Amino acid sequence: MDFEAFFKSELDSLHQEGRYRVFADLERHRGHFPRATRYTANGEREVTVWCSNDYLGMGQHPAVIEAMKQAIDHCGAGAGGTRNISGTNHYHVLLEQELADLHGKEAALTFTSGYVSNWTALGTLGAKIPNLIIFSDALNHASMIEGIRYGKCQRVVFKHNDLKDLEEKLALADPAAPKLIAFESVYSMDGDIAPIKEICDLADKYGAMTYLDEVHAVGMYGPRGGGIAEREGLMDRITILEGTLGKAFGVMGGFITGSAAVCDFIRSFGSGFIFSTALPPTLAAGALASIRHLKVSQFERARHQDRVRKLRAALEAKGIPHMPNPSHIVPVMVGDAAKCKWISDILLDDFNIYVQPINYPTVPRKTERLRFTPTPMHTDADIEHLVGALHSLWSRCALARAVA
Amino acid sequence: MDFEAFFKSELDSLHQEGRYRVFADLERHRGHFPRATRYTANGEREVTVWCSNDYLGMGQHPAVIEAMKQAIDHCGAGAGGTRNISGTNHYHVLLEQELADLHGKEAALTFTSGYVSNWTALGTLGAKIPNLIIFSDALNHASMIEGIRYGKCQRVVFKHNDLKDLEEKLALADPAAPKLIAFESVYSMDGDIAPIKEICDLADKYGAMTYLDEVHAVGMYGPRGGGIAEREGLMDRITILEGTLGKAFGVMGGFITGSAAVCDFIRSFGSGFIFSTALPPTLAAGALASIRHLKVSQFERARHQDRVRKLRAALEAKGIPHMPNPSHIVPVMVGDAAKCKWISDILLDDFNIYVQPINYPTVPRKTERLRFTPTPMHTDADIEHLVGALHSLWSRCALARAVA
Ligand SMILES: Cc1ncc(COP(=O)(O)O)c(C=O)c1O
Ligand SMILES: Cc1ncc(COP(=O)(O)O)c(C=O)c1O
Repeated sequence: MDFEAFFKSELDSLHQEGRYRVFADLERHRGHFPRATRYTANGEREVTVWCSNDYLGMGQHPAVIEAMKQAIDHCGAGAGGTRNISGTNHYHVLLEQELADLHGKEAALTFTSGYVSNWTALGTLGAKIPNLIIFSDALNHASMIEGIRYGKCQRVVFKHNDLKDLEEKLALADPAAPKLIAFESVYSMDGDIAPIKEICDLADKYGAMTYLDEVHAVGMYGPRGGGIAEREGLMDRITILEGTLGKAFGVMGGFITGSAAVCDFIRSFGSGFIFSTALPPTLAAGALASIRHLKVSQFERARHQDRVRKLRAALEAKGIPHMPNPSHIVPVMVGDAAKCKWISDILLDDFNIYVQPINYPTVPRKTERLRFTPTPMHTDADIEHLVGALHSLWSRCALARAVA
Repeated sequence: MDFEAFFKSELDSLHQEGRYRVFADLERHRGHFPRATRYTANGEREVTVWCSNDYLGMGQHPAVIEAMKQAIDHCGAGAGGTRNISGTNHYHVLLEQELADLHGKEAALTFTSGYVSNWTALGTLGAKIPNLIIFSDALNHASMIEGIRYGKCQRVVFKHNDLKDLEEKLALADPAAPKLIAFESVYSMDGDIAPIKEICDLADKYGAMTYLDEVHAVGMYGPRGGGIAEREGLMDRITILEGTLGKAFGVMGGFITGSAAVCDFIRSFGSGFIFSTALPPTLAAGALASIRHLKVSQFERARHQDRVRKLRAALEAKGIPHMPNPSHIVPVMVGDAAKCKWISDILLDDFNIYVQPINYPTVPRKTERLRFTPTPMHTDADIEHLVGALHSLWSRCALARAVA
């Protein structure tokens, strides 16, 4: 087989579909977020980033920056090993205590990423608990889907956020079989939020564990940034609450929290945890500072919500169609991969606005979109500039406007 | 099902087998490696680390430290997104160029860890190339095994480093089927090295791609630290060369290098690459500095090999049985999980020597061992102290000595 020719032809079909991905080569500037330098073949330009998942700008917070630099001065660069073989650093221990406290759980376990935490935790539960059935929301993130696949256990997909469908499927399953319901709080691409309480009620009724991904909620919701489950007073009803250190906390890494036994179980049996170099002390220290700050400061959360409201109002005033939802994610639907890329190219080239087109496999085909994520650092002028640009583009290319 | 009781009983059986893992809570000290503070319930103690995979001590190299702090000052903490959605930073671009150059390849792609790079690259190839057969060395790392499982393609396991067995299996397979041979250069637990040239010859003969994991060799072997394949002049015969930024390079992260098409292919289709927050700029900057340093400096590699020779000679002088091999890894075999833990506890408590017992599933049962990794920073006195401690222990507990 001519492998090179195979790879090239697969890439060609991406080009033809208009969904070949070109990464913007950026340099973010501490203290000037959401501004960044964009490197191109023709030189450098300053752009405003409108699609970052550093939702609260904590990636440049002085407390985080200082903690990271101090940890490097103190301990050096990497962890130097897997968690078991010389790689556990005192910062990991403190971080896990902090995360357990954040979510009101006995214990926490950190991973190199949110992806790895979902994949490892769900995969290990699925593989080790005999006859486990995992009930999985249809729009769960790739990392959860892959974890469930890994476990080779029975998987039952229920319609997205659909309690009736979930209950029907729970009722159909063997009552004696152990069960787990896996879902997210804020779904990252549509920005809708799961009915957590009702899902927990069903879990109780059918004796299922609950596994909640709060990757797009931790730091941003709840009085201490514990996520939607904290805001709704439901953390104690979640068996395993999973999150990332790489979005609102501004650093990188992932975690689960739960009972001491379940965390110890994943720690002891999870391949993706056991066989991989631990997080560098500097990342653990930065995340620790970020979590501690957001546990007490309401400023970032309030300003974040204010910016979201402001952007939505400005879009509405101009009749730009955006998906309504109760979260901080503002999707503007386009519905075509090539058109989506074309709009974002113009925004970048003509307006210095950077928003990555979102296409398959991140969202279903025909739901291609621009996904705006306002942060506390986006000013009124930034919002006006963005909405003005979209307005002129929508006029130019006669994109369907929402009925005002 | 009583889930808590299930988790606890699974953990109990680990305790009973003597292979329940207790992580040493350490704080490494920049500038004083291999010294570290060990936190215990009874206070803090200084220990000497003898099992770090920061093989060359680059985790504390001034060039690495400075580069990391500068990147934090410049760009902030995290990348702020997946590589596609605002997370590509100019440091990633430079790092990938540097890695491609290191291995004489057209392109490189970075991942959050070596684990994720193996899992994603092998999984994507296995899933996407129709009818691919992957020939996998029996002792391949967990991350490679899981990647191959993920791909759901046909897997043929050949006996460890056994050319005859590999050729028999290649010859038996459908000549028309696309093939890939996946193996490592330095195997991390036994320290033996694969016959790379001969495996490449077989790959040529049977039209297979080669996938080589050089996680335990990059930085340490070859005139520029390109690994064993560089040392033997074989890099151009490897289709995909995989490595980590978390061991000899002292930071964290993983990578593959290969043709532009194959890297673009994994970039475009690999779930573990696409759906996860990118490496923080500071990690990319630190790795970049480390690779650049080790490309030109021979000092660390020479001193590393010298320390390894010195430790082996000292062990031999005292008749302490250790596994001979052509690499920098010095395994002292114990063959029993509980005994292995007992020895390492005494080394830690009585001698302030930290070496983690290595047990199942990291190595097969009955091959439990202490795995020593001398670094350029271990002094003659450190070696004498270690071998003296082992000598007294071996006498105390009448462990079988090697015939001198
Ligand atoms: C819902 C969800 N879970 C998990 C992840 C993975 O987290 P991380 O980026 O830390 O790997 C993501 C996105 O990246 C996500 O959107
Ligand atoms: C052979 C091998 N490949 C890959 C890995 C994973 O690399 P990382 O620690 O960067 O995840 C390891 C160990 O950790 C390993 O020993």
